[in-house]
Amino acid sequence: MTDLEKHQRMANAIRFLAIDAVEKAKSGHPGLPMGAADIATVLFTQFLKYDPTAPSWADRDRFVLSAGHGSMLLYSLLYLLGSDDFSLDELKNFRQLGSRTAGHPEYGHGAGIETTTGPLGQGFGNAVGMAIAERLQRDRFGKELVDHYTYVLAGDGCLMEGISQEALTLAGHLKLNKLIVFWDDNGISIDGRVEITDSTNQQERFAASGWNTIDIDGHDPEAIADAIRQAQASDRPTLIAAKTTIGFGAPTKAGTAKVHGAPLGADEISGTRDALNWPHEAFEVPSDILDAWRIAGLRSAHAHKDWQKRFADADTETRADFERRNRGDLPAGFTQAVLDYKKKLAEDQPTMATRKASEAVLGVINEVVPETIGGSADLTGSNNTKTPQTLPVTPDDFSGRYIHYGIREHGMAAAMNGMALHGGIIPYSGGFLIFSDYCRPSIRLAALMKQRVIHVMTHDSIGLGEDGPTHQPVEHFAALRAIPGLTFFRPADITETLECWQLSLESRDGPSVLALTRQNLPSVRKTFEEGNLCAKGAYVLADSDDEAAVTIFASGSEIEIALDAHKELTEDGIAARVVSVPSFELFEAQSEDYKAAVIGSGGVKIAVEAGIRMGWDRFIGNDGVFVGMSGFGASAPYKALYEHFGITKDAVVAAARERLGA
Amino acid sequence: MTDLEKHQRMANAIRFLAIDAVEKAKSGHPGLPMGAADIATVLFTQFLKYDPTAPSWADRDRFVLSAGHGSMLLYSLLYLLGSDDFSLDELKNFRQLGSRTAGHPEYGHGAGIETTTGPLGQGFGNAVGMAIAERLQRDRFGKELVDHYTYVLAGDGCLMEGISQEALTLAGHLKLNKLIVFWDDNGISIDGRVEITDSTNQQERFAASGWNTIDIDGHDPEAIADAIRQAQASDRPTLIAAKTTIGFGAPTKAGTAKVHGAPLGADEISGTRDALNWPHEAFEVPSDILDAWRIAGLRSAHAHKDWQKRFADADTETRADFERRNRGDLPAGFTQAVLDYKKKLAEDQPTMATRKASEAVLGVINEVVPETIGGSADLTGSNNTKTPQTLPVTPDDFSGRYIHYGIREHGMAAAMNGMALHGGIIPYSGGFLIFSDYCRPSIRLAALMKQRVIHVMTHDSIGLGEDGPTHQPVEHFAALRAIPGLTFFRPADITETLECWQLSLESRDGPSVLALTRQNLPSVRKTFEEGNLCAKGAYVLADSDDEAAVTIFASGSEIEIALDAHKELTEDGIAARVVSVPSFELFEAQSEDYKAAVIGSGGVKIAVEAGIRMGWDRFIGNDGVFVGMSGFGASAPYKALYEHFGITKDAVVAAARERLGA
Repeated sequence: MTDLEKHQRMANAIRFLAIDAVEKAKSGHPGLPMGAADIATVLFTQFLKYDPTAPSWADRDRFVLSAGHGSMLLYSLLYLLGSDDFSLDELKNFRQLGSRTAGHPEYGHGAGIETTTGPLGQGFGNAVGMAIAERLQRDRFGKELVDHYTYVLAGDGCLMEGISQEALTLAGHLKLNKLIVFWDDNGISIDGRVEITDSTNQQERFAASGWNTIDIDGHDPEAIADAIRQAQASDRPTLIAAKTTIGFGAPTKAGTAKVHGAPLGADEISGTRDALNWPHEAFEVPSDILDAWRIAGLRSAHAHKDWQKRFADADTETRADFERRNRGDLPAGFTQAVLDYKKKLAEDQPTMATRKASEAVLGVINEVVPETIGGSADLTGSNNTKTPQTLPVTPDDFSGRYIHYGIREHGMAAAMNGMALHGGIIPYSGGFLIFSDYCRPSIRLAALMKQRVIHVMTHDSIGLGEDGPTHQPVEHFAALRAIPGLTFFRPADITETLECWQLSLESRDGPSVLALTRQNLPSVRKTFEEGNLCAKGAYVLADSDDEAAVTIFASGSEIEIALDAHKELTEDGIAARVVSVPSFELFEAQSEDYKAAVIGSGGVKIAVEAGIRMGWDRFIGNDGVFVGMSGFGASAPYKALYEHFGITKDAVVAAARERLGA
Repeated sequence: MTDLEKHQRMANAIRFLAIDAVEKAKSGHPGLPMGAADIATVLFTQFLKYDPTAPSWADRDRFVLSAGHGSMLLYSLLYLLGSDDFSLDELKNFRQLGSRTAGHPEYGHGAGIETTTGPLGQGFGNAVGMAIAERLQRDRFGKELVDHYTYVLAGDGCLMEGISQEALTLAGHLKLNKLIVFWDDNGISIDGRVEITDSTNQQERFAASGWNTIDIDGHDPEAIADAIRQAQASDRPTLIAAKTTIGFGAPTKAGTAKVHGAPLGADEISGTRDALNWPHEAFEVPSDILDAWRIAGLRSAHAHKDWQKRFADADTETRADFERRNRGDLPAGFTQAVLDYKKKLAEDQPTMATRKASEAVLGVINEVVPETIGGSADLTGSNNTKTPQTLPVTPDDFSGRYIHYGIREHGMAAAMNGMALHGGIIPYSGGFLIFSDYCRPSIRLAALMKQRVIHVMTHDSIGLGEDGPTHQPVEHFAALRAIPGLTFFRPADITETLECWQLSLESRDGPSVLALTRQNLPSVRKTFEEGNLCAKGAYVLADSDDEAAVTIFASGSEIEIALDAHKELTEDGIAARVVSVPSFELFEAQSEDYKAAVIGSGGVKIAVEAGIRMGWDRFIGNDGVFVGMSGFGASAPYKALYEHFGITKDAVVAAARERLGA
């Protein structure tokens, strides 16, 4: 058997495992694994630094299957290399309930799945973040401990999605030379030939943003290996445009859209076995080929052992720091720093916008938590996400802690997911809340993957004023509260902002959004509380001596209105309470007793929030009073807008009186 | 005064109106109008086919200020040209409540604002749609009636957003040679110099997708004019990269981020007046310059008159058809065609997925409504949006009615907005519901602008099965219902699908989303009803003889479960009702009496929907029972998923019994 024959048989093992799994599931995408098997075989057997016995080794190379529908490619590779998580039985259980082998690769289902992919372009964006993280960590810990590549396999769909432009321009700008992207250039998308929808020269496009580009036959193992070697030596990120045939080997369907997303069917499979000279049963890999794969799986053990030696040689402090960051533990001094600052705030009682409050809080956090990496999508001065500790990262200097992400909300959020997945880093962003819509697919994936990424989103309502309805969130509180696993915070003052930041950082298993104001707000928390009141999601901020006739629920900037109404009602002898609701999600996680007590059993219930009502019925019932927005905002100074839309103390008091018949 | 001096003074009129309005409002963006004034002056005085006395003339050129923060550029131009809507008083009222001169250009605030811009990149995407619409209409009505350009002014931000890639690749592929984009290449974004975040050669990038590109000094009027002439003669869309100085003329702030988004301040304004030799009071335009502008405003009257003559010469049928389509009226035969088909369905009672139902309905609609233009983001066979009437549009043939949008959901939705804004076309899309997240910013703008665009979004829940949680909408019903002005439909069978399509087409003042299933559903509407029951948003689908002890609310595919539960409860002697809820928004628009009657006063209330609970408390109260999802889905055959997540007839019946203590 020549080397080429051996390569081809090893690649065929991937092809047939994919074919057989899709056929058995009666569902799935055989075309990509069949087309990209040669690329994957070369990459995984000769280059990828990946030890199946230690699949979470921090210095492994990352492989991201951005074209996630080709999931069987990844599952087959992991099985063949000897992964504990991906047995042959798992492959046979493809796309079934409870299997590790979901329709698209799901992070957490097994080691070797570096990120959840499927929504096109996301994996590419994640990979850019992973490559940023590698570069950051290399700067901090030296190349003895951190020195790995990030490889991506992307399809035409990944490259057509707009997010790919944000990802590639960020990577090109930052000169992420250890990022190597294979474009599986098979010329086919679901509707047919790519040329019916696109006429882009992808190599020229990437080159226009500073990429190294290489053009190869994606079925030629030597060309693939040469290209990877060239890419590894480049001082820029590399696109390897690999011409492939989708469904390679299928006698009648190869090279057509028919092989993309459906089982081949018995006849076509039989023909493919003949064409590729693979006379084996379904799911059978001949022992010599399985052995060859398993030997390839042992390839990185040396590199891993060498790394362990280098790690053991590092000084104790470095080792401890490296391990702490990678575990995701916060530094020991964090909690005390928060408490000290909270004490100070209780004394100072500052009036400030919560975006400014967040900046002040970040100044405390970034001092004690060195693994935070901040940034903004070109709104640094508006989002207030930069602190004295966070100098900018530049293409030539990754010692900084602040990324000017450019006007790329989607690319930013996807990169942050990649940074969190890489490990060792806590990324936080800056943007306008309205533009959460621009990066919503990535926020959702952070939630699905349970990743600690923190989005600072300022200018959170009509309170931003003159920029008008295109910039004023109205439905965004509801829309973000709707995403499972995401914690949406809307703090009312600087102390709540501090508490919400603390909760975001302590939330190791999910993303957070902090919605912050442009406009000034008074301090509403008058006394020092050691406990984190925001951790309850909602709590009684102002109480009544008697049983409350009125309860006013509010969040963020509308707490001020609620407290003013509370004061007026109290002065009028109407017993009233104010409940601050910084987070719906954390409230729902409380005990039934606590929730019932906060909501209260009787009386008039009023919610005040400068957004739509959706979600508030949980607190006020569908017969409660909602003081807020029912449509889009307008362009005007913000105080005029609050008056215009009737979100005022007077409106709250009048509603309470009307309901009470007082 | 030389021509150059005259040009410069005319451009300075724009600059100072912008400076003065921003200063008076104490808010706004002077930098762009100052930098782009030369481009705008050349374009509006020498090229743009725009008649201020007939600003809605169908064959006018379109000008899209994609960099919407520079709104004062547009308002100044419209005032100077003699627009009725933009008086000097309006300019003085910039960014104030009720003014036409909002912070960002708002469609509907005055003629000449062709689209709402501000969220970056959207205007570019709209313009691609306008240019597509022009090309389509030109094919249908001939260049005697339709022959105009679409001009765009885009900033660095527009070009960094991913949507720009989707827009430019679509335009390049379709060879939209009447699309001319000025890139205001001022090298500055909010965080500083663009080079701190991006290293892209934009001309190479556009050229890689088939664009003509031209590089000019954006302050040289002859160069600008030459470039426009070259662009007009091109067989491809053109990018004019115009090097400009942001805040041109400001002595200390020009060319810096300081002039982007804040008033210049009195000293800097005074210095700018000196530098540009503009010794006039605030808001004062010397009469010779105003005259020159007003004369420029008369320039297109001839072209308009000639067009009117050509239009008068057209045959009666063509004139009527052209006017009907541009008014947005549906053809006379539409209602009857819907009714005839509905009668047939009542007899046939077909079982089919609602995506297939939609295809059948579209076959009826597209036969009688020639102005529908369908498409899909590369999921034609899955979305079922193509019918025999809709042949593909290709770069060389725009006689078709179907656009293969490619894997570009965001670009597609933005282009559809532009097509609707252009007039004469009803665009509908195809995509997976999960990817509504990818195009949400454009859907929101359609709602804000009250445009009739229709999004067909299939694979609407865990019912899509094996593709798993990355593809299964869970929070998307709530998130879309949250957008003000958008009508979200989730029909339960083919008859409801027909009714929802009818409502979407009849909704002239807003966009619609049709959420449709992958999986088969039975017909649940058993009898022919002349009225459109879905128009009520919610209606009683199955009633009880006695007062209902249980009311089950459901939508879409879960109606089948609700009806099965209804049957079992009824057989057990428990009086139950089923309310079908195809649209929350239309329900809210009904009379209080109707709503109260549908919701019912007592009994157990249960909602069933394969999404999250948010929003359903409106129907069931916060003490009602919700049978649905509380987190992400999973990868498995869909029937297994419904069982796994407990969205079953048995769960509904059990909940009803438990509540009744039965």
